[in-house]
Amino acid sequence: MKKLSDRVAIIGMGCTKFGEHWDKSADDLIVEAAYEAFEDAGVEPDQIEAGWVGTLTSGISGLSLTRPLKLQYIPVTRVENMCATGQDALRNAAFAVAAGAYDLALVAGFEKLKDSGYSGLPGASSSVIGAGNTAPGAFALAANRYFHKYGVGKEELAKISVKNHYNGARNKKAHFQKEITVDQVMKAPMIASPLGLFDCCPTTDGAAAAVITRTDLAPRFKKDYVTIKAMGLAVGPGTGRLDPEFDFTSFPETRAAAKQVYDQLDIKEPRREVSMAEVHDCFSITEMIIYEDLGFSEPGKAKTDIDAGAFTLNGDLPVNTDGGLKSFGHPIGASGLRMLYEIYAQLQGRAGERQVKDMKLGLAHNLGGNPGSFTCSIIALGHP
Amino acid sequence: MKKLSDRVAIIGMGCTKFGEHWDKSADDLIVEAAYEAFEDAGVEPDQIEAGWVGTLTSGISGLSLTRPLKLQYIPVTRVENMCATGQDALRNAAFAVAAGAYDLALVAGFEKLKDSGYSGLPGASSSVIGAGNTAPGAFALAANRYFHKYGVGKEELAKISVKNHYNGARNKKAHFQKEITVDQVMKAPMIASPLGLFDCCPTTDGAAAAVITRTDLAPRFKKDYVTIKAMGLAVGPGTGRLDPEFDFTSFPETRAAAKQVYDQLDIKEPRREVSMAEVHDCFSITEMIIYEDLGFSEPGKAKTDIDAGAFTLNGDLPVNTDGGLKSFGHPIGASGLRMLYEIYAQLQGRAGERQVKDMKLGLAHNLGGNPGSFTCSIIALGHP
Repeated sequence: MKKLSDRVAIIGMGCTKFGEHWDKSADDLIVEAAYEAFEDAGVEPDQIEAGWVGTLTSGISGLSLTRPLKLQYIPVTRVENMCATGQDALRNAAFAVAAGAYDLALVAGFEKLKDSGYSGLPGASSSVIGAGNTAPGAFALAANRYFHKYGVGKEELAKISVKNHYNGARNKKAHFQKEITVDQVMKAPMIASPLGLFDCCPTTDGAAAAVITRTDLAPRFKKDYVTIKAMGLAVGPGTGRLDPEFDFTSFPETRAAAKQVYDQLDIKEPRREVSMAEVHDCFSITEMIIYEDLGFSEPGKAKTDIDAGAFTLNGDLPVNTDGGLKSFGHPIGASGLRMLYEIYAQLQGRAGERQVKDMKLGLAHNLGGNPGSFTCSIIALGHP
Repeated sequence: MKKLSDRVAIIGMGCTKFGEHWDKSADDLIVEAAYEAFEDAGVEPDQIEAGWVGTLTSGISGLSLTRPLKLQYIPVTRVENMCATGQDALRNAAFAVAAGAYDLALVAGFEKLKDSGYSGLPGASSSVIGAGNTAPGAFALAANRYFHKYGVGKEELAKISVKNHYNGARNKKAHFQKEITVDQVMKAPMIASPLGLFDCCPTTDGAAAAVITRTDLAPRFKKDYVTIKAMGLAVGPGTGRLDPEFDFTSFPETRAAAKQVYDQLDIKEPRREVSMAEVHDCFSITEMIIYEDLGFSEPGKAKTDIDAGAFTLNGDLPVNTDGGLKSFGHPIGASGLRMLYEIYAQLQGRAGERQVKDMKLGLAHNLGGNPGSFTCSIIALGHP
């Protein structure tokens, strides 16, 4: 993709508390997230010219956005790209705004999972690797292979979960707001060996939203708007597991999407040039592999960086400062926008005790599918 | 939406035969449609920089396009907007190309319905009007009300079905390639009174595809490319049936989408200025109401124009020259692109005995949902 740097600005964002919302409908969650974004942007709902909505299983068509918000006959597209749905909805909205088609657009992502009986990705799994293999089982293969290849153990993964819970404990919107210890992670019930309960993100309800405009119009709405610096999306051919070279310890979709973004921004040393990142820690092993695929760590060397505290709040490249999927939760269509909600706040200096110092460029990494057949979206935000 | 006139060109299109494809998978259909489009455009699959894929129920994520075509780590978005899915996929691709993000993009729409047990729109219906009310039932309400309001009878609708079958009988890719008579329509088994079997479009498998580029690049690929003149999309608030003013005889989503397109093209007299149209005749009554909502006929006067043969192949505004949903079939995600496939051929003078004379501007109208809660997409194609 060619550069769209700084042509599109985010002027408002909203996010519900993530968690178990038995008493709220998907529509309720969308209203809550969208109205926080409207208020933040200083716009009224009837100023919105077009919408994009992302959900995997909780609604169909543009009506899932117009109905809760009573939007009247504007264009609204539903985007779905497995767990990368939220970011891809924003990506498509950004293209339309960059093309000059609309001045003000709303993007919302949501999922209502707790009362849906949802348990992993049966549709995606069955189409690629046969029914019955759930997400924990698929990522457990990656963990076992990574352990075998690099001589790392379960306690290394535990440190990732402990970090993300530490951050989430400082976030009023996170699903789980409590710290955990390495000992707790090690002794937790097994889900799919070697992944235990605290290696897995939860099943969560929630919604998140953004209001975007062309950057030249942004100052009319908001002083401290942020801009989209780069966007990347890479979808695998879905045949990864049939490839004898594929060993589960690196995901080519992340590497391809990162290359798109780094090329757009002329980034040579991501570890030094990226201020902080939100990455798709659906499982602890996923975050470990992402460190390496994003070039934050050398292959097989994530352990060294984790042990040095590189990705903690005070490290040189804080990752998942808001708690990540592990602690903030993972309402699928909302997750990609939730990541951007955190980066947006970090860029505006509003992240409280989670604030990253000298915040310049934030990277959000959103991964959908299973090892061997992913969609991966990466969006970089910064100051204009 | 502001004008994007002529900034995006279609340089290749493909479409499978529509019908019952028990022996082909969705992947097979996508390959067939996409390779026809590649050949038409004179491009190789590995030149495609990004993709958009539309399906309602036959696949998830961008992998439903990358897997059959073996596309390697390019960005692909899945778009879903009920029966308006196909056109909305193209609309989003056009924004990205117009923004300069990609030079060559592939758009594909598909549905594999015959072996899915699919029967109408249960998801959409249940969310709006209660489970159990299928599409024929919902549109029967419109037919009965239209008859009551304007004093029209079932034989008027029959003339629409007869016209579309006449056109489809001249189309080698149509699901049903045989003419029918008014008498056959009148005596056909009842589905939902007053709509009989020949008032309803069939359940169909199929796929269609387009290759697009920026118009300034188009001459490098193809001499007789066509351009996107205008695009409109309107999504209702989903509360139409709760509105005491809503009487089922006019669909505000079509009127809103048409206004967007006519404003972009400065069209004042659509009946005179549009050369031909493909419209969403999921039921015969739908096409009748669309004539009026698109401004082809005055409200309540569609009968006069139908009786005068205005919308036949030799009329002054031929509609559904390829047979429409009624005769060509309706594989949901493919339908919007199938309409454009016909207009593209008409603009290139390749429509054989269905060729419209003096072809300048074609309108494709793609409607999703049920009366009271529609998504409506309209795309206009013309010569550059």
